[in-house]
Amino acid sequence: MEKILASWESLSVSSAILRFLDINLRSIGQVMFQNNPLSGILFLAAIAWGSYAAGVPQVAIAGIVAVVVSNLTALWLRVDHEPLHSGLCGFNGILVGLALATFLGPGLLLWVYVILGAAVSVVVMLATTNVVKPWGGALTAPFVLTTWLLLLATYGFSGLAGTALPSGAVVTAFQAYKASPLQLIDLIQGAFLSISQVFLKASGIAALLLLAGLAVSSLAAAVFALCGAILAVLTAHLFGAESDLITGGLLGFSPVLTAIALGTVFYQPSWRVAAYAALATVFTVVTQAALNVALTPFAIPALTAPFVLVTWLFLLPRQRLEAVAPVANDLEKPFAGA
Amino acid sequence: MEKILASWESLSVSSAILRFLDINLRSIGQVMFQNNPLSGILFLAAIAWGSYAAGVPQVAIAGIVAVVVSNLTALWLRVDHEPLHSGLCGFNGILVGLALATFLGPGLLLWVYVILGAAVSVVVMLATTNVVKPWGGALTAPFVLTTWLLLLATYGFSGLAGTALPSGAVVTAFQAYKASPLQLIDLIQGAFLSISQVFLKASGIAALLLLAGLAVSSLAAAVFALCGAILAVLTAHLFGAESDLITGGLLGFSPVLTAIALGTVFYQPSWRVAAYAALATVFTVVTQAALNVALTPFAIPALTAPFVLVTWLFLLPRQRLEAVAPVANDLEKPFAGA
Amino acid sequence: MEKILASWESLSVSSAILRFLDINLRSIGQVMFQNNPLSGILFLAAIAWGSYAAGVPQVAIAGIVAVVVSNLTALWLRVDHEPLHSGLCGFNGILVGLALATFLGPGLLLWVYVILGAAVSVVVMLATTNVVKPWGGALTAPFVLTTWLLLLATYGFSGLAGTALPSGAVVTAFQAYKASPLQLIDLIQGAFLSISQVFLKASGIAALLLLAGLAVSSLAAAVFALCGAILAVLTAHLFGAESDLITGGLLGFSPVLTAIALGTVFYQPSWRVAAYAALATVFTVVTQAALNVALTPFAIPALTAPFVLVTWLFLLPRQRLEAVAPVANDLEKPFAGA
Repeated sequence: MEKILASWESLSVSSAILRFLDINLRSIGQVMFQNNPLSGILFLAAIAWGSYAAGVPQVAIAGIVAVVVSNLTALWLRVDHEPLHSGLCGFNGILVGLALATFLGPGLLLWVYVILGAAVSVVVMLATTNVVKPWGGALTAPFVLTTWLLLLATYGFSGLAGTALPSGAVVTAFQAYKASPLQLIDLIQGAFLSISQVFLKASGIAALLLLAGLAVSSLAAAVFALCGAILAVLTAHLFGAESDLITGGLLGFSPVLTAIALGTVFYQPSWRVAAYAALATVFTVVTQAALNVALTPFAIPALTAPFVLVTWLFLLPRQRLEAVAPVANDLEKPFAGA
Repeated sequence: MEKILASWESLSVSSAILRFLDINLRSIGQVMFQNNPLSGILFLAAIAWGSYAAGVPQVAIAGIVAVVVSNLTALWLRVDHEPLHSGLCGFNGILVGLALATFLGPGLLLWVYVILGAAVSVVVMLATTNVVKPWGGALTAPFVLTTWLLLLATYGFSGLAGTALPSGAVVTAFQAYKASPLQLIDLIQGAFLSISQVFLKASGIAALLLLAGLAVSSLAAAVFALCGAILAVLTAHLFGAESDLITGGLLGFSPVLTAIALGTVFYQPSWRVAAYAALATVFTVVTQAALNVALTPFAIPALTAPFVLVTWLFLLPRQRLEAVAPVANDLEKPFAGA
Repeated sequence: MEKILASWESLSVSSAILRFLDINLRSIGQVMFQNNPLSGILFLAAIAWGSYAAGVPQVAIAGIVAVVVSNLTALWLRVDHEPLHSGLCGFNGILVGLALATFLGPGLLLWVYVILGAAVSVVVMLATTNVVKPWGGALTAPFVLTTWLLLLATYGFSGLAGTALPSGAVVTAFQAYKASPLQLIDLIQGAFLSISQVFLKASGIAALLLLAGLAVSSLAAAVFALCGAILAVLTAHLFGAESDLITGGLLGFSPVLTAIALGTVFYQPSWRVAAYAALATVFTVVTQAALNVALTPFAIPALTAPFVLVTWLFLLPRQRLEAVAPVANDLEKPFAGA
């Protein structure tokens, strides 16, 4: 593995085109915090499979267009070498592209929207990074903010139709239902789809590809992703969340990211860190349920906002935990020019 | 008084259990900014009486469980000695416990929620403190944020029922009614209940206990609390707010906290400071009415968010007023390890 | 022009009353970033004409009362000489006054509201400035926040009626309509009214007066305002926004401010800066549509929030663009005492 990466790196140095390809692959890997082109390839395979299996190949294409536009925008903005090369300027863009093509109907204006959203996501990324630099990274906040604005605006634009957006409603008391005992098979499905929903996909095969992509770069990340998904599914079941949401992975994708981020990226794994990450993971499930409700009047999805909010809250007091090193990750390093 | 406190302090030094009790009492006192175990005892008496009189003893128990869990969490997180010992890690927790038990129906999951909320409130407290350190304290923002998320999530969880939550509705024009002239007795009731509603209680006796708790620690705080309550009731009446809200103290508890905070905690009392605090108190009434409306679609209560928002806004430009000392309070001192 | 300004300045130095008049005129000029009393006079003429033509002279009077109250409040708060004298303490106040008188019905309490809002806007201005100092100015955020709270509260106050406020509704799918091809005359009307709507007016003559007021102070600002307005109208038409909103200038006033701010105030005009400002201007149209939708459940207008949000997002990573000078404007200079 190390060897493959080393030869790839030496190839990339020699060619501007390969370097740009490398940057885009790392951007895809950074969606789950992996600055690694191999992870990027496996994640891309998961996206492609998930889109193909769901009969929406344009979603994968939108993701690829978006990540390329994002990195071109970053080049035009003369972003510093390091964040650009580690893929930090593109991972929000690919999510913007995937989300827009998932929630909106096809058409020429969709592609205008994808390009606009991908370009703006880079500006928002640089902006957010400068704000949160003292305590952490931008995470997927730029994706969430940019996509929310673009989706909300479609309700005022006749040229763009939110065919897959939730319908608006006032918050009303949840109709209690008899929660059926959770079958082991449901638990497993819910946990796996929680992982694939990070890329807005509901596919077990995509989940396996994503876990493989994590494992080639960081075994700990794969373990925390899986454990986070299981913990999320159990928590949601304990509180009596809707079965469909649980088994569809829709309450678990944000907690998965929280678990990876707190357990392996910003802290080094340890029992103490695992306990802290577990508390955050459980609270991310609550926050996901809360934001699902809070966004009901706006008729837009919560995306990964629960992950961003809870992870920032749990990173901000970080000096309270024994972090092995204050700067543990690329996301942490302040941009040189900032 | 000084003597009692001094002997208590020397007792606390000698025993870990008494010290922990001391921390929890100070935590209760800090809800109204008093780093004083005597204030804590009187505030606790107010909570106990208010809960007993309203027939909901579990509310007081939830508050006590929450404050203990919060301080245990702070110990586990190895929070610095000073904020921990002055009760700053627990005052949000007790409010989380009181609010959850007030708004949600009883049951095992309620207690899971209380423990989870109390633990998370400490993390949010440390997080908020780090963000607002340049200009002030976290105030009750951790309580508001944590409780909002937990309450919102209940609409998605069949295991938790928001029996006392407001029902959701779209904002519509307020039906004008003939405002009856304010009776002196209504004014007095509204002002007293404004004070007791700081702890989510509607009880005149609780209000008197709270005023006593303030007075033993700071006479100025008691005076500003009472004057703030009266000013809030008058302002609400002037603008034509609903009589029930006014006499129930529901438009006054945030302004009471604003008046204490700006008039006696972050500034030293003076006429100039009193005028500034009065402007903020009046605007807190407007903000309370505004957030009541803004939260209508979400079907959750505003809690003390108006106090937090307005007090932060009025603290941020603080150098413009003649503060006697830039560091006037424990809340102001940056945590040592931060 | 220079001569007139120089003699005016020497007059102002000699008289406290003229100096106070000068401060108020500059405050009006600062709504569009012009620290220039001549701009202020022309902008005031635009306001007066727009109010007179629409049959609501009390709107102009409310604006004048508000700007005076704001600057008196700033004097009482002993704000530093420089921000006060360049009009930075009053431009949010005048907008608060114009907006309150535009959206609320007449009556004694309206004037209480105008005075309260104008005074509070200064506190919020100082607060916001301290928060955003590292990357930019407060822009019109204090106006937006203060006015939102005051307008929301009217739904809870029988003494104040929001006669011109939008009615609340849950977000629902936008009814697609056959967009008619944009007539040149519509384009021109939409662009001009986009400029006059910065002061909440729908008047072509007011727009011409505003352009004149910009031109006497900065020709570049006038050019960017006009180009921003045209770009905004074209963007809104491309995405299929409602014709009435486009031709009424209601999707263009925030983009106009974005174009002036990014193109001429915080950066020096250049092709690269123009491209960056154009991207921001287009995204401000999207954000305006998004916030119009997001505020539907709250039944309040978006005001200039889209301008504030997008401009802050595009200013935060500013080191990425070749700014000629890091400190380009009064808005940028940290307050001396802060």
